Amino acid sequence: MPVPTHIFNPPFNIVRSSYVVFGVTDLARSRAFYADTLGLHVEDETKDAIYLRGVEERQHHSIILEKRGAATCDALGFKAASEDDIDKAAAWCKSKGIVHKFVERPYHGRTLHFTDPQGLPFELNFAMEKRENLLQKYVHYRGVHPQRLDHFNAFAPDVQGALDFYAALGFRLTEYAEEDGPNGRIAAGWMHRKGNVHDLAFTNGRGPRLHHIAYWVPTAMHIIHLCDLMSTTGYLANMERGPARHGISNAFFLYVRDPDGHRTEIYTSDYQTMDPDHEPIRWSLRDPRRQTLWGTPAPKSWFEEGTTFTGATLREPLFHANVIVAS
Amino acid sequence: MPVPTHIFNPPFNIVRSSYVVFGVTDLARSRAFYADTLGLHVEDETKDAIYLRGVEERQHHSIILEKRGAATCDALGFKAASEDDIDKAAAWCKSKGIVHKFVERPYHGRTLHFTDPQGLPFELNFAMEKRENLLQKYVHYRGVHPQRLDHFNAFAPDVQGALDFYAALGFRLTEYAEEDGPNGRIAAGWMHRKGNVHDLAFTNGRGPRLHHIAYWVPTAMHIIHLCDLMSTTGYLANMERGPARHGISNAFFLYVRDPDGHRTEIYTSDYQTMDPDHEPIRWSLRDPRRQTLWGTPAPKSWFEEGTTFTGATLREPLFHANVIVAS
Amino acid sequence: MPVPTHIFNPPFNIVRSSYVVFGVTDLARSRAFYADTLGLHVEDETKDAIYLRGVEERQHHSIILEKRGAATCDALGFKAASEDDIDKAAAWCKSKGIVHKFVERPYHGRTLHFTDPQGLPFELNFAMEKRENLLQKYVHYRGVHPQRLDHFNAFAPDVQGALDFYAALGFRLTEYAEEDGPNGRIAAGWMHRKGNVHDLAFTNGRGPRLHHIAYWVPTAMHIIHLCDLMSTTGYLANMERGPARHGISNAFFLYVRDPDGHRTEIYTSDYQTMDPDHEPIRWSLRDPRRQTLWGTPAPKSWFEEGTTFTGATLREPLFHANVIVAS
Amino acid sequence: MPVPTHIFNPPFNIVRSSYVVFGVTDLARSRAFYADTLGLHVEDETKDAIYLRGVEERQHHSIILEKRGAATCDALGFKAASEDDIDKAAAWCKSKGIVHKFVERPYHGRTLHFTDPQGLPFELNFAMEKRENLLQKYVHYRGVHPQRLDHFNAFAPDVQGALDFYAALGFRLTEYAEEDGPNGRIAAGWMHRKGNVHDLAFTNGRGPRLHHIAYWVPTAMHIIHLCDLMSTTGYLANMERGPARHGISNAFFLYVRDPDGHRTEIYTSDYQTMDPDHEPIRWSLRDPRRQTLWGTPAPKSWFEEGTTFTGATLREPLFHANVIVAS
Repeated sequence: MPVPTHIFNPPFNIVRSSYVVFGVTDLARSRAFYADTLGLHVEDETKDAIYLRGVEERQHHSIILEKRGAATCDALGFKAASEDDIDKAAAWCKSKGIVHKFVERPYHGRTLHFTDPQGLPFELNFAMEKRENLLQKYVHYRGVHPQRLDHFNAFAPDVQGALDFYAALGFRLTEYAEEDGPNGRIAAGWMHRKGNVHDLAFTNGRGPRLHHIAYWVPTAMHIIHLCDLMSTTGYLANMERGPARHGISNAFFLYVRDPDGHRTEIYTSDYQTMDPDHEPIRWSLRDPRRQTLWGTPAPKSWFEEGTTFTGATLREPLFHANVIVAS
Repeated sequence: MPVPTHIFNPPFNIVRSSYVVFGVTDLARSRAFYADTLGLHVEDETKDAIYLRGVEERQHHSIILEKRGAATCDALGFKAASEDDIDKAAAWCKSKGIVHKFVERPYHGRTLHFTDPQGLPFELNFAMEKRENLLQKYVHYRGVHPQRLDHFNAFAPDVQGALDFYAALGFRLTEYAEEDGPNGRIAAGWMHRKGNVHDLAFTNGRGPRLHHIAYWVPTAMHIIHLCDLMSTTGYLANMERGPARHGISNAFFLYVRDPDGHRTEIYTSDYQTMDPDHEPIRWSLRDPRRQTLWGTPAPKSWFEEGTTFTGATLREPLFHANVIVAS
Repeated sequence: MPVPTHIFNPPFNIVRSSYVVFGVTDLARSRAFYADTLGLHVEDETKDAIYLRGVEERQHHSIILEKRGAATCDALGFKAASEDDIDKAAAWCKSKGIVHKFVERPYHGRTLHFTDPQGLPFELNFAMEKRENLLQKYVHYRGVHPQRLDHFNAFAPDVQGALDFYAALGFRLTEYAEEDGPNGRIAAGWMHRKGNVHDLAFTNGRGPRLHHIAYWVPTAMHIIHLCDLMSTTGYLANMERGPARHGISNAFFLYVRDPDGHRTEIYTSDYQTMDPDHEPIRWSLRDPRRQTLWGTPAPKSWFEEGTTFTGATLREPLFHANVIVAS
Repeated sequence: MPVPTHIFNPPFNIVRSSYVVFGVTDLARSRAFYADTLGLHVEDETKDAIYLRGVEERQHHSIILEKRGAATCDALGFKAASEDDIDKAAAWCKSKGIVHKFVERPYHGRTLHFTDPQGLPFELNFAMEKRENLLQKYVHYRGVHPQRLDHFNAFAPDVQGALDFYAALGFRLTEYAEEDGPNGRIAAGWMHRKGNVHDLAFTNGRGPRLHHIAYWVPTAMHIIHLCDLMSTTGYLANMERGPARHGISNAFFLYVRDPDGHRTEIYTSDYQTMDPDHEPIRWSLRDPRRQTLWGTPAPKSWFEEGTTFTGATLREPLFHANVIVAS
């Protein structure tokens, strides 16, 4: 199947993945997880919401937790290159018949929300209140002190369609997993805007559903400490997979589940991809090292479970790959 | 069941675990594993044997590999405190009716060999040729550059008997796993002479068989590099368990199998135990964190497979613990 | 003094810093340094030149060493976004009266060379032969196994002029050191294209001269190993500064000098800067933490010595800052 | 000069270094340093004293801070092998005419205090209240979370005399620095009881004075974090030397000064020495790598400043070595 060709001059300019909006059922319990355990910085909180960011991030938040009756994900937020790009995006949505609206988010400037063809809630925002960089405020370092939000990974019922859609918005493929043979279908793809392995990835499966969000941390040592911390503070069951290394992206990773089941990857050590002639890496579905370079398989939950997007209609995948893929 | 009481003034003085003698079927293949991959230093070799040591070790070798028709372990070697202690040990064997003999080993001074009540081949040696410390010869660092042999772990059909036997030789218990309840039986025990968690450990099981030898390395980062190296140089199948952290001993570990199946643990981060009033830590067999603090279970092979000691008669364990134990 | 305002739509598109061309007096001696000690990969070599790259780099080389009678630097090479951008650059040079030419470099496509107003030899290249990614070829890891070329740092006689020139080419300021007071002059500035702290930095001083090139490595542990290795293999005198952490950029660094005196920084742990509204950090010249967060001052050589650019005419700086700056 | 010959059967049995008693002028300020910054665990405190321990230590404390009018050190405490050894020590003091007494220390069993021939206040204690091991209480990890007290280092006016005195008590030399030539004098020596490089070291200088106490930590990464933390929380001036690696002992170290000037070394990566035939390493005073393998010299304060022992009479050293030594 064709590797999607990205557009160098997309209809509007997206810089990177920027924030996620999670519905959670118990804010205090989520705060204990994200702030006290992972070590994200609580920038603001109300009785209905908590705003968190990583130590390097100067924007007000990269996670919004909102109190809800059930776990959900309202939006995957991306940074636009300018206010003008938001207008261009709205015009583009209109021209393509894509359902869209402007939504209000505290601490944000204008925020455009649209639903992509997979059903994924995509948001685009340029202006957000700024806060002081905490990178050298070492006294605040807690847990694994996530440094910055890096990417989103979603189940898509039509991976090829999803990759083609985002390639047309300037996202560029860096790695992909494919069936072998002349008619091999792409079962997963990793796409970036900001110049590393990904901002957004898709995996074949019932969807749209969020597989995980990911924060970058400096070293594997920090991730090992998080394992020690979580396993001795009542979060053993929240450690779903890892630590280990992906073949895809070369990431040293740990996957954890929050109290509502939302999945976060804590990872380090991928690579740069900003060259326009950077070529994507193909992995055969038959090569188990793409998922775990060191061999340990992922648990079943990791392949099957994900967060439902608010209001999205789930569809079964167009095909079932011989080998389950995700990473 | 009674925790064994060690003797402060044993009949002879053992300093620490010191060397192992492995029979291997293909010396070149073993050399590629131990020297080129793990990074042990080849101190000497002949067409029939290879002598290896860690970067901190000043004795000629801590592993002897001898060419054989089948995988086996001839001896677990310990360092005596003096030549005099070897004579005391021989006299003690005689007084106890323990089969013993003096054996020749190249580069060694006198070496006493006896068979313990479990059938384990125990050797005692004081004098060995010395070599230059390689700790600051950083140019020789390869693989995980094991720093020093740390301990042996064996399956024993009668763990209580094994622990009692070695307690009478001055080995001191640091941690143990026990069935719950008033008549709970000890299913595994860790004993030391040198002042850290162990020199010799026993696990309930068909035996005597060697479960593993272990080398200490400075940090988890080195172990992660070994995983990366082994998984990309044809040794993926030799990575049996880990990396992860044991609850018991707090060790961050990786278990690898050599081309003949001999198991080596590469580990870091245990603790000191030399205080005479240091008390052993009890773990319930019902507590899975004793094996892996982070929850990932060990594979079946790790519980079941081991190296046969040359000439030993295997016996089934005296009891089957409700929960398989080893660590 | 005014902080330079970068251009979002520059006359031609530069992706990142890409390669350096060093004249060295003894290729074998340089090979021992760059390949055997630092651990760069020798991709090709002739009797007159050596081509090296980092483990992540897919382009043929990021360092070219050419045999010469004296140490020199011929060019700082940057990656263009396309062949078309090279033509745009040539046209732009012509329109600005900037001396330029096309030069031949083995393994390269077209390469434009021009001299910037400071006298710095700037090269622009898009097409270079590609080689296999070595990131997961862990068996080749040696020394500090530099992962990728990250940036260049040069002495400039007119820092403000240099920053303004490159801002007009789309380079964006991320940090700068400035005299205090209403007329405080900028004494050093760090500018990027690729989305981290810098691709090119300038420090007030006699110039133009190259201060250093820099390679990114994953962790501080790798840099500590390089210190151990260099200090025990005859390269003690080549370790000029560090390891320590810069306040500016947050980099954990080590500066080393090659056998001809060319300086390389090995560093880790800076941060991302690709947001169009990312604001530069100002450091006062009076704050010593900008240079070394932990306080240890840099040696005099680090402030004074640099590599002469081939054919460049040295000029004294326009002013002498009260406090020597560089980082 | 003769390398001191240690006694294998000393008059009484010392296990290891165990605790220090510091007089400090402001308990709150010291608590902020030792507990909040270094990360030692406050086990108990009164208005006049604070008791601290490392995460691995099961004894009640390894540092006692007592409120005083001036900075001082009352005692260097060692663990005896038994109560009986304390009686043997008292009898030995009496037989040798060494001034001694029993002192009261909260949470201690009997504690013998004597003044050694250099004037150093030596204490011997076996029984101390025990507390729960915090090694796997990762939630308490703060700062560099020191794991265990490792050793003491003191200035002595007569290093040869000090080494001979402690050799007669069973301390064994592991490394020493000596003038070159047939009549070269020992200028510094490192001696152990517990099986690593040292429990007690002496450096030629005006004394007796305490040079430093030292805590062991698992990795260099933890020490780097401490540097980052101290340099950004008002403790920049308290970072006296490092991080770097000693040639002697191979320790990766950082020396910090508490608010009263008491010096603590935070270190990792020495080696084992428990073999009775372990031979000491000789360093020439002319070899600068013994102090810093990587070349950076120590500051003057590190060579000259130390803590006065309560009531001790200072003497000038017997000789002035050509090269200042200490490590």
